[in-house]
Amino acid sequence: MSTLTLPPIADLHDRALAGRLQHAIDNKTKPLGALGKLEALALRIGAILGNETPVLQQPQMLVCAADHGLAARGVSAYPSDVTGQMVENFLAGGAAVSVLARQHGLALTVVDCGVRRDFAPRDGLLVRKVAAGTGDSSVGPAMSAAQCAEAIANGMAIVRGLPGNALLLGEMGIGNSSVAAMLLARLVGHDIEACTGAGTGLDAEGRARKARVLRDVLALHAAATAPLDALAAFGGFEVATLVGAVLQAAEERRVIVVDGFIASAAVLVAQALRPHVVQRCVAAHVSAEPGHALLLAHLGLDPLLHLDLRLGEGSGAALAWPLLESACVILCDMASFEAAGVTRKDAQ
Amino acid sequence: MSTLTLPPIADLHDRALAGRLQHAIDNKTKPLGALGKLEALALRIGAILGNETPVLQQPQMLVCAADHGLAARGVSAYPSDVTGQMVENFLAGGAAVSVLARQHGLALTVVDCGVRRDFAPRDGLLVRKVAAGTGDSSVGPAMSAAQCAEAIANGMAIVRGLPGNALLLGEMGIGNSSVAAMLLARLVGHDIEACTGAGTGLDAEGRARKARVLRDVLALHAAATAPLDALAAFGGFEVATLVGAVLQAAEERRVIVVDGFIASAAVLVAQALRPHVVQRCVAAHVSAEPGHALLLAHLGLDPLLHLDLRLGEGSGAALAWPLLESACVILCDMASFEAAGVTRKDAQ
Repeated sequence: MSTLTLPPIADLHDRALAGRLQHAIDNKTKPLGALGKLEALALRIGAILGNETPVLQQPQMLVCAADHGLAARGVSAYPSDVTGQMVENFLAGGAAVSVLARQHGLALTVVDCGVRRDFAPRDGLLVRKVAAGTGDSSVGPAMSAAQCAEAIANGMAIVRGLPGNALLLGEMGIGNSSVAAMLLARLVGHDIEACTGAGTGLDAEGRARKARVLRDVLALHAAATAPLDALAAFGGFEVATLVGAVLQAAEERRVIVVDGFIASAAVLVAQALRPHVVQRCVAAHVSAEPGHALLLAHLGLDPLLHLDLRLGEGSGAALAWPLLESACVILCDMASFEAAGVTRKDAQ
Repeated sequence: MSTLTLPPIADLHDRALAGRLQHAIDNKTKPLGALGKLEALALRIGAILGNETPVLQQPQMLVCAADHGLAARGVSAYPSDVTGQMVENFLAGGAAVSVLARQHGLALTVVDCGVRRDFAPRDGLLVRKVAAGTGDSSVGPAMSAAQCAEAIANGMAIVRGLPGNALLLGEMGIGNSSVAAMLLARLVGHDIEACTGAGTGLDAEGRARKARVLRDVLALHAAATAPLDALAAFGGFEVATLVGAVLQAAEERRVIVVDGFIASAAVLVAQALRPHVVQRCVAAHVSAEPGHALLLAHLGLDPLLHLDLRLGEGSGAALAWPLLESACVILCDMASFEAAGVTRKDAQ
């Protein structure tokens, strides 16, 4: 791990800018606060981009994929083969995130961070494979410290190579809701039962079995309490790559659009390493995975959408994207009371 | 009222189509139900448009504006002049609904249904003024039965003249949250206290005064229990015009995107007249007005967004619009398991 240098992430707090942004919003032709959470979103985007008239440019949807040794323990409703099949589906344009990214003009990059199978090179695919799936965390660490550092460095390098000022986080990996559940349990201190959900569709019995497996894995790695130790112990390559992507995007003051439970777990690790990361984040939605609401509450992020999504891929981030653009057009294009000649409330 | 003929609104229920739509959604490359409420939205749009691959065409944002005699009784934080000023702002492109409609390619039509002042003719403005503001409902009916019928007929004719297969409802009228509150109280039976909110920004004292005024108005018109009688008693011209627009759009099987409390109150009246209207409706959001959640629950509509909006104008409908388009691209463009070569859950 000694070769990995994490970027410093500065405190964004700028009282003067925050005041100017609030004044700009309050001067728009609408009652004070009448655009509700969209106003808070506009303030946040303005603060991240350091601009009273922020413009989102060349948004990048980054979908990191990898396989998990733990999947062999029956923690998912789908077989590991589906990870690679879905990567093909992303690239062929047929997955949910593919069609939603097209709808919104989001550039889609799919990263093989550690899928078991290999893919033919093509546009939109980056191969940053650390290994063909992580180790089985029920018998040993999912990754070595060196593998973990490599994946984080990959994520940082990928984002350095992407244009634009907004990054949307997506992922694919059969078994990775188990990873997110264990990271949440370990780094925040919730009982694993509260962190364990149906994932891709376990029934109640399957979910109970999953929670028992995860409890044993947590016990096996009881010493892995530091963020990077926990990440190495539980995996996965896609999560670690996203951790690097989040750190790099945060350092560059990109707007980071967090998707579901797994993408949020990557932010959790990044925030544990660099607390100000979360100032750059927008929570797209809160999913049907019970751990997601707990995780967002810990991060202090208020989700935009409540649609009971549980798909991942970045689909929720893509669905929320137009709201970020709306927040910007409110700041950039709405008229002020003065400009529009509209009477203020206090003029009555 | 005898000259007004309301259209018949058929029951949309089509078991075969519903089955085909559900099968199409379930065959998409995602776990069953993983797109949550977006799947229910896709099923609803497919049912309204009668198509397994629905395409939304030429969406029309209709913003109906009018003034209210009751506004003189201090039920709003803003003076009546603001209604006309905001109409100018809509047409000049500076209001929230203007910038959001531009963002999403929604054609914006502003209707003067009964604003106190007059407007110079221009593109995007329709003058269907029944009178220069309603009467003061605290001393008599807001409209005569003939005026109410005229406004409804106007709304029907306006929609007949608009292209496309989707109608987004917007409104402007200082005092109209009082109208919505009274319609909800009268037609659904809630106490007026539970239906009364801050509107454009009353404080607690102002809200209490508003509720007292509305209680007296309700008592004055105790006999106005039938939907059209209540609408005439409480107003307003923009609400009645929207009632007509909703009925016409429902008859033509357009997708009706309901905005906030006031637009929902128009749907409430339309639904009381023709119960199947609500099958054509999508609730864009639930607002910060306390009566809105009660009204949507009565209609059986599950709102897409929970953003604490309280602006009206159609702004919430515009913000939710991309979700309707997403629901359609999911149905139209996502790959099936077979087409993408992805293993199903039950194949494990």
